Amino acid sequence: MRFHEKYLKAREERESILCIGLDPALKEQRKHEVIPEKYGDDLLGFCLDIIDKTAEHACAFKINSQYVLFKLTLDELMLLNQVVRDKGCLSILDHKLGDINESNNSAFYWIKKAGFDALTYNPYSGNLRDAADDAHHHDLGLFVLTLMSNPQAEWIQKDAPDDQPPLYERIAREAGRSKADGVVVGTTDHVKNIDLKRIKVASRDETIYLCPGVGKQQGAMGKIFNALGDNLLVNVGRAIIYDQHPGEKANGYRKLFEK
Amino acid sequence: MRFHEKYLKAREERESILCIGLDPALKEQRKHEVIPEKYGDDLLGFCLDIIDKTAEHACAFKINSQYVLFKLTLDELMLLNQVVRDKGCLSILDHKLGDINESNNSAFYWIKKAGFDALTYNPYSGNLRDAADDAHHHDLGLFVLTLMSNPQAEWIQKDAPDDQPPLYERIAREAGRSKADGVVVGTTDHVKNIDLKRIKVASRDETIYLCPGVGKQQGAMGKIFNALGDNLLVNVGRAIIYDQHPGEKANGYRKLFEK
Repeated sequence: MRFHEKYLKAREERESILCIGLDPALKEQRKHEVIPEKYGDDLLGFCLDIIDKTAEHACAFKINSQYVLFKLTLDELMLLNQVVRDKGCLSILDHKLGDINESNNSAFYWIKKAGFDALTYNPYSGNLRDAADDAHHHDLGLFVLTLMSNPQAEWIQKDAPDDQPPLYERIAREAGRSKADGVVVGTTDHVKNIDLKRIKVASRDETIYLCPGVGKQQGAMGKIFNALGDNLLVNVGRAIIYDQHPGEKANGYRKLFEK
Repeated sequence: MRFHEKYLKAREERESILCIGLDPALKEQRKHEVIPEKYGDDLLGFCLDIIDKTAEHACAFKINSQYVLFKLTLDELMLLNQVVRDKGCLSILDHKLGDINESNNSAFYWIKKAGFDALTYNPYSGNLRDAADDAHHHDLGLFVLTLMSNPQAEWIQKDAPDDQPPLYERIAREAGRSKADGVVVGTTDHVKNIDLKRIKVASRDETIYLCPGVGKQQGAMGKIFNALGDNLLVNVGRAIIYDQHPGEKANGYRKLFEK
C-alpha cells in the first residue's frame, strides 16, 4: 500500500489528524520538559507508555532521531514501531535525512528494517527525485522540509533570486514533481498565510502537509485549514508528552483539529 | 582543548590530512562495495579492523550516521571512538544534523556521550550561531555543509538572489561569523576553482575544510591546496575501506596529500 493510502486509512479509522511528536529527553539533558524521574533513562518505557495513553486519539507518531537513535537499539525501535502499528497509527521517523544517494539508501534500508512508515527529508542536498524514488523502493513515505517552524530558517528558506519564487516554494514544487508524499510546513507566527498558499499551489493534490509548531498557539488551525486543505498531519509534541494527563491532552488536540 | 587545536595536534603528530570515511554497508544493502562476507553483519568488527590497519596514516575518521547509527549501540560507539582516540586520531560523526535548537541540543548531548570530537551540520534550518555555540558548549567541533560533492545539490547551493553571492558562499560566511570550526566542501568536478575561492574568502582564517569526493580523481588535490590552503581534512572512504589492502591504500593517499 502506498503511503498516501496508509495515511487516508489511518485518518479515517482514527478520525484524527493529530500526530504526536515523541522527543523524549533525559533529566541530565536539560532543565525543563524531560521524562519523569520514575523512568530513569528508560526512553523506550516512556515512549511505550505515551503511545498506550494517547494512540486512540492519534493518527500518527513522529519520533525524532536526535532523541532516540543513539539510545534505542534496532530491536527496541522495531518493538516501538510494532506497537504503533498495532494501534492502527502511522510511524514517522523525524530524521531530516539529507545526504548523497548512497548514504540516503543506507538510511532507507535501516529505517525500513526498524519498521517506520515514513521519514522526513532535508532538501539541501538537492537530490529529491532520487530520494523519493529510493524511499518508495523501500516502501517508505518521504516528507520534505520546506518552510521550517524556527524563525532562524527564514534567511535561507525564503531566499529568492530575481524574478523567482522563494526557495521553500521551489522545493515544494520539486517535492511534488518528485512524487514525494508530503512536505513539512511550520505553523509558527513567522509563517504567513501567503507562505502557506504558495506551498499549496506548488504542491500536487495528494501532498500531505506535516505541520509542527502548533503547540499552544491554537489560533493557527484556521489559517492552516484554509490554506492547505484536508491532507494534514498536525504535530504536537511536548505539550502532550510532558503533560500530567497525556491522554486527555491528546484528545483535546484531536477535537481542536476537527474541522 | 578547542577542536581547532585538537586538529592541529593530530595533523602534526600523524603528518597526515587524510580523513577516512567509515561507511560500512551490509551485503543485503547493495550489490557492490559492501563489507567482506567474513564479518557477517558485524559492522563494529569491520570498522575496528579498518581503524587498526589504517590509523597510522590518518588524521581523522569520519563515521556516517546513516550506516552505523541504527545498528551500533551507544556502548559500541563509545568503544569505537575510544579506539580512534587511542590511535591519536580525531573522530567526526557525519551526521548532517539540521534541526530546531532543542533537537540539535539533544543530538549534541548524545554525540558527545558517544565520544565523538565533532560532527557535520546541515545549514538548511538556518540556526548556525546557536548550533555552533551549543556544539562548543558540549565540547564538539562543528563542520557546516556548504557546497556538497553531489551535482544535484547545485540548484539549491549555488542559488543567488539578485546582486548577492551564491547560497553556499553566504553559508560559508555565516559559518565563519558563527565560529563554526569548519566547512564541508565537495571536490568533485562540478565544484569549480571559483567556488573554492569564494568559500575561502568568505571563511575565517581558522576554518578547517573537510573535503569529500576526492576518491579516485587524484588531480583534484592541486586545485584544493591552491584554493583552500593548509587547513584541510581530505576524506577518502570507499576507495580505502573496501580495498584488499586498506593500510597500503591509506598510506598512498596520505603521501598523495603531502603538499
